[in-house]
Amino acid sequence: MDTRFSAAIHTLVLISEADTPMSSEDIAFSVGTNSSYVRKLTVLLKGAGIIESHQGRSGFSLCVKPKELTLMKIYQAIYETDRMKLFDIHQNTSDECIVGRHIKPVLARTFRSIEDETEEKLKNTTLADCIKNLRKEAGLLTFRCRR
Amino acid sequence: MDTRFSAAIHTLVLISEADTPMSSEDIAFSVGTNSSYVRKLTVLLKGAGIIESHQGRSGFSLCVKPKELTLMKIYQAIYETDRMKLFDIHQNTSDECIVGRHIKPVLARTFRSIEDETEEKLKNTTLADCIKNLRKEAGLLTFRCRR
Repeated sequence: MDTRFSAAIHTLVLISEADTPMSSEDIAFSVGTNSSYVRKLTVLLKGAGIIESHQGRSGFSLCVKPKELTLMKIYQAIYETDRMKLFDIHQNTSDECIVGRHIKPVLARTFRSIEDETEEKLKNTTLADCIKNLRKEAGLLTFRCRR
Repeated sequence: MDTRFSAAIHTLVLISEADTPMSSEDIAFSVGTNSSYVRKLTVLLKGAGIIESHQGRSGFSLCVKPKELTLMKIYQAIYETDRMKLFDIHQNTSDECIVGRHIKPVLARTFRSIEDETEEKLKNTTLADCIKNLRKEAGLLTFRCRR
């Protein structure tokens, strides 16, 4: 089960909303993992310019406003890819069969158009949406989370 | 790399368009796999009522018109699931943190709405679309494919 994307969104909600900067240990406590796992995520998020850390201070801060931080940007950072890939295509089709010879580009375009649609939805959903929904789910709240 | 979905579409194009019924061996030749792999797919497709085979005759035939056979139906048959699942959610969030306590249903709804969009696209794409695109790709053709 790959939960890096979901853990990354959780991490970013904490970084965005906590009243004081949260360390990897604080984040790991809330996410329910260990701090080395969180550091792997934060390295990727830093590499993508989504968060930053400051020398001499603990914790992270967002470089992008939650309203402008789309789930697509988070997905791209975590999976180190520009495009979303949902379906793989079998590669050893027979050239001696007319279907085998021509089906790969047809499937590639079909899958690409499905992936485009999914990407569009990820581009239209932001961290701010997740935070708003979380506030609704929890009732109005201050995001205080410490061990 | 999981290419069952793509191999299943290829298989169904062959079953739909071949001039005489194709056996698992014929299909395996075009897909570039072995016939036991094809049989695993055809068992699932038969179970879902998408194809049938007739006692005493070799090969398969479609039970659903290509225009009515959506990629969603094929996906559901191959992965033996009603719903598409794109993202998993981490499950050990801390109840002591307000974010950890409330984030799972928020992420579940967010992911569900993305998955709904993807499913919609799979429901709006049919085997007939794939066949049409394949004919375009190959030039007008009769689908003849034998070893």
